[in-house]
Amino acid sequence: MSTPFLATVLTLYPEMFPGHLGHSLAGKAMERQDWALETVQIRDFATDKHRTVDDTPAGGGAGMVLKPDVLARAIDSVADDTRPRLLMSPRGKPLSQERVRQLAEGKGVVIVCGRFEGVDQRVIEARQLEEVSIGDYILSGGEPAALTLLDAVVRILPGVMGNALSGTHESFETGLLEHPHYTRPQDFEGRTIPAVLTSGNHAAIEKWRHEQALALTKERRPDLLEKSPQPVTK
Amino acid sequence: MSTPFLATVLTLYPEMFPGHLGHSLAGKAMERQDWALETVQIRDFATDKHRTVDDTPAGGGAGMVLKPDVLARAIDSVADDTRPRLLMSPRGKPLSQERVRQLAEGKGVVIVCGRFEGVDQRVIEARQLEEVSIGDYILSGGEPAALTLLDAVVRILPGVMGNALSGTHESFETGLLEHPHYTRPQDFEGRTIPAVLTSGNHAAIEKWRHEQALALTKERRPDLLEKSPQPVTK
Repeated sequence: MSTPFLATVLTLYPEMFPGHLGHSLAGKAMERQDWALETVQIRDFATDKHRTVDDTPAGGGAGMVLKPDVLARAIDSVADDTRPRLLMSPRGKPLSQERVRQLAEGKGVVIVCGRFEGVDQRVIEARQLEEVSIGDYILSGGEPAALTLLDAVVRILPGVMGNALSGTHESFETGLLEHPHYTRPQDFEGRTIPAVLTSGNHAAIEKWRHEQALALTKERRPDLLEKSPQPVTK
Repeated sequence: MSTPFLATVLTLYPEMFPGHLGHSLAGKAMERQDWALETVQIRDFATDKHRTVDDTPAGGGAGMVLKPDVLARAIDSVADDTRPRLLMSPRGKPLSQERVRQLAEGKGVVIVCGRFEGVDQRVIEARQLEEVSIGDYILSGGEPAALTLLDAVVRILPGVMGNALSGTHESFETGLLEHPHYTRPQDFEGRTIPAVLTSGNHAAIEKWRHEQALALTKERRPDLLEKSPQPVTK
């Protein structure tokens, strides 16, 4: 058996893990040892008697900054040094499904969760942390972002998703938002399933779904079309 | 005392909540009753003996679709009908800090967590669900997204953040990514704190930080500058 995907999370709140990753798909995959999660308490690497992990920002201002020396020691304590080292941060590169797939194809990931106002810039540079953002909003810390990223990665690890076919039509996999879905009953509060979907004409169904996906993407996310132009018809 | 912010989450996995929201800032705020969280098990609104919540997609294809009738009954069971009703979905409008702030100013939120391949389009329309995406990647379900959104919202509820000043320089609040942070020690592995930050010249510090924020945003997120042009100097 191959070594399972290993996620090591450096945090001041190890009690937040595995959180939602302990349930459903990710939780079952963890039980099957398709992946493993370990946490490192950053505070264990403070050296003063108060176990101080943060200090006031140089130059003044609100909030506290995570100390570079303490965080560097925590990072250096992780034996395996060949996995990507991420820092969850709103300043980072936006997480994409492509990056999720790259991470899932690797042997694991080391994730640093920032707290307070931020992390000292020098440890980001010295330990070559890859700053990753899960979206343009501010969280209480890196932990919710790490849990979200890991959910996306674990979901596509080999063997985790029950139905391997699921995913091929999903949003972002085709460069478009996904087409609308319908299921029984045929009549829901007077709203019926579009006739084409019950026609049995597979070519017409594919064409309708592609047109719907394209129209939805044009309406809601024209930026996705600019990134990778799509043909109007297949 | 005013009514606390109420989050009602409709899910097939209520055991995933409060998850990380039970700890740290959000957890303490919940203990103080600055906000409250309740979950609704969608499966409780299935009417057949197998408590079926999903069915195959009309028109064929992989995965299963959440049934509109079951979900509609779950939504209708939530007595308070005046809160925004969100559906976490990669097809949704990207979550922004502006939308987070709007939600935090309201009385609460109702969040529907999708699972499987998706949710029947007719219930989205009939119950006027606002589709919200937390980023361009695919999760195992809406739950991690709901937990992330709630973390962002709860963090800025009145009284939750210890230091009310923290936040004013943050990424997205100024339209720019945040400037780099530094703290003691002065020398970390031969890397020193930029001299301007220890100069005591507050105007020079502000100018340096703004220039750094602008340069970082230009490098990593030129799309943010296109959205809201920033002056080069303050």
